[in-house]
Amino acid sequence: MRLATLRTDDGTRAARRDGDSYILLTHTDVGALLSSGDDWHNAARAAEGDRVDAAKAVHAPLVPHPNKIICLGLNYATHINEMGRDTPRYPTLFAKYDGSLIGAYDPITLPAVSDSTDWEAELGFVIGRPARHVPKEKALDFVAGYTVVNDVTVREYQRRTREFLAGKTFEATTPVGPELVTADEFGDQEPDLEIRCEVDGEVMQRSRTSDLLFGIADIVAYVSDIITLLAGDIICTGTPGGVGDGRDPKVYLKEGQTLRTVVEGLGETRNVCVRETTTA
Amino acid sequence: MRLATLRTDDGTRAARRDGDSYILLTHTDVGALLSSGDDWHNAARAAEGDRVDAAKAVHAPLVPHPNKIICLGLNYATHINEMGRDTPRYPTLFAKYDGSLIGAYDPITLPAVSDSTDWEAELGFVIGRPARHVPKEKALDFVAGYTVVNDVTVREYQRRTREFLAGKTFEATTPVGPELVTADEFGDQEPDLEIRCEVDGEVMQRSRTSDLLFGIADIVAYVSDIITLLAGDIICTGTPGGVGDGRDPKVYLKEGQTLRTVVEGLGETRNVCVRETTTA
Repeated sequence: MRLATLRTDDGTRAARRDGDSYILLTHTDVGALLSSGDDWHNAARAAEGDRVDAAKAVHAPLVPHPNKIICLGLNYATHINEMGRDTPRYPTLFAKYDGSLIGAYDPITLPAVSDSTDWEAELGFVIGRPARHVPKEKALDFVAGYTVVNDVTVREYQRRTREFLAGKTFEATTPVGPELVTADEFGDQEPDLEIRCEVDGEVMQRSRTSDLLFGIADIVAYVSDIITLLAGDIICTGTPGGVGDGRDPKVYLKEGQTLRTVVEGLGETRNVCVRETTTA
Repeated sequence: MRLATLRTDDGTRAARRDGDSYILLTHTDVGALLSSGDDWHNAARAAEGDRVDAAKAVHAPLVPHPNKIICLGLNYATHINEMGRDTPRYPTLFAKYDGSLIGAYDPITLPAVSDSTDWEAELGFVIGRPARHVPKEKALDFVAGYTVVNDVTVREYQRRTREFLAGKTFEATTPVGPELVTADEFGDQEPDLEIRCEVDGEVMQRSRTSDLLFGIADIVAYVSDIITLLAGDIICTGTPGGVGDGRDPKVYLKEGQTLRTVVEGLGETRNVCVRETTTA
């Protein structure tokens, strides 16, 4: 099953993909659907409602207001090497705030305060029900499904201090979507998918999610020892090598460029970079 | 004006302090009140409703579900020195998730997975209306008021990776409250207040908020260039010297100890440490 959050005349609505159209559900977004109870899967599958032509659908961020957005840093050996870091023994966790999220085809805002905005194609996953102290063997039971994320990063702000957060949470920078592909589509196993990032058609990153140092189950188990994961929480699993900042010379996103992020079987996000014009 | 979020039979309610009692407002919590519009101050001041004896009031986290909890690290010279860090040129920002918040008198959960839980007394402030690209001169206009926070930290997890987040967001560790003292009580200027932390009555930290490297207006201006601050957002301004981890030998919180955090004019939080018993 493929789920999305679509913009409508009066806000947003969760929707289920059905061939060339989406069927609108009663929930305002995928986060509200997942939070509605353990039966969300059957409810979404059975629902009937108004249809929207998929070609005309306007995607909001897949979960517009998750309780948590948890990001992994340094989770592919190729990216660790290009950034000159050591291989971590534990998952490196940092946050984004939901104001950074954009829909799958929305413009990316290049901030006025810096010219160092860079791409980070990632496999994202979404939590389906509360998870606390979950052992690794059971961790996948708590995953609702998978999606595409680009953890767009303002490198200058990422490096200004010893904490990544400032560079990771700029307003309207982070596409997430277009769809949640539910975990049963992958046999409730960790999917091994090609991940690819293109800037104006040039392939910048290409890897497979099987190269993750800490996989989906590792992450759920680890984080759930720290804090309760809630339905709708978005987890971004980290990016492989090939970011602009790891090149010589360094390359950053420019106004008018299109960033395309593809994860095999999940679809793609496609975002035009627009320079922020107002600074006051 | 002093505002609080109180637990009631059917959830929580925002409340205004009136002498020895609280007057219950119609909003579910202080975050909902602040998000209700620019007239929240007058609405709260004028409201009449059921009264609760202040001595019997049960405090929830001041804002139970803020859009953002933004924390400053390394913001007092004394703490920078004890942690062996360099003085930063820019505010060091990291996040907490709302699952870490507790009420002013709730127990602190010492996590089962680590014995390194430490105190960090802090001045907190809460945003009163949306702030984006705000110059420093106007920044205090966006502050609703001030409160007490203890940024309780699990040092082992803070140091496991290069990012603080994991050690900062353990479930049910971070008291915030008991009240929001509105900014007009300080003449809409940055308050200069004594801040103090005690463990079982022994003073561990004592400083003044005028020693902050980056003050309230600096923080609002800086963060609002990154992302829109929203009404109800909680900002924790950093801790002065005297944490347990900076001592020789190091000292951490033990089961049964009481952590008391006092900020002059704002009140205090007082929390008994309870060891987490369930790990699965």
